[in-house]
Amino acid sequence: MIPELKYDDKGLIPAIIQDVKNNEVLMMAYMNATSLEQTVKTGKTHFWSRSRQKYWMKGETSGNVQHVREIYYDCDADTLLIKVEQAGAGACHTGHRTCFYRKLDLEK
Amino acid sequence: MIPELKYDDKGLIPAIIQDVKNNEVLMMAYMNATSLEQTVKTGKTHFWSRSRQKYWMKGETSGNVQHVREIYYDCDADTLLIKVEQAGAGACHTGHRTCFYRKLDLEK
Repeated sequence: MIPELKYDDKGLIPAIIQDVKNNEVLMMAYMNATSLEQTVKTGKTHFWSRSRQKYWMKGETSGNVQHVREIYYDCDADTLLIKVEQAGAGACHTGHRTCFYRKLDLEK
Repeated sequence: MIPELKYDDKGLIPAIIQDVKNNEVLMMAYMNATSLEQTVKTGKTHFWSRSRQKYWMKGETSGNVQHVREIYYDCDADTLLIKVEQAGAGACHTGHRTCFYRKLDLEK
């Protein structure tokens, strides 16, 4: 069911998480083969934390669970795009709906 | 103008490219500090190719240039989200508008 994907030298693949309702990009995090399997099996996003070196499920402490609706992979099969219904206040641990809440000032 | 960003151990940062018109995610590729500077300076996306180990500008051969409208960075400052106007047929070298044209079958 899961196609041949290209994981990096640490066994990871980046997963872009997008809001299925309005196509807002919410966050990006990393999966390995096991956390992708867990994501597919449970219908909730599971990742591998590079800093903490452990598995985590989005929302396991905050309750801001991501319910998986569609999973895409790119032409190189080395990046995932996952469309979710975001529960709770949002995806970012800062309280923002999206992790991408800061913008470069291109005028300066 | 460019904030403190966290590049990985190869000096790279992933850049998610999103269509400014409809929020479709078009592709993901990697930048280093120099290609990000070039992107900001020229208003067209420039990347670092990990496989070819060289700089490339999107559309340099195909003409499918990406005109940069907004650049966001995430809470960890280790991922970019760049909103572009996509020129030409699309972002993917396969001819598709988006590189994420394949979907996992979650029913099986």
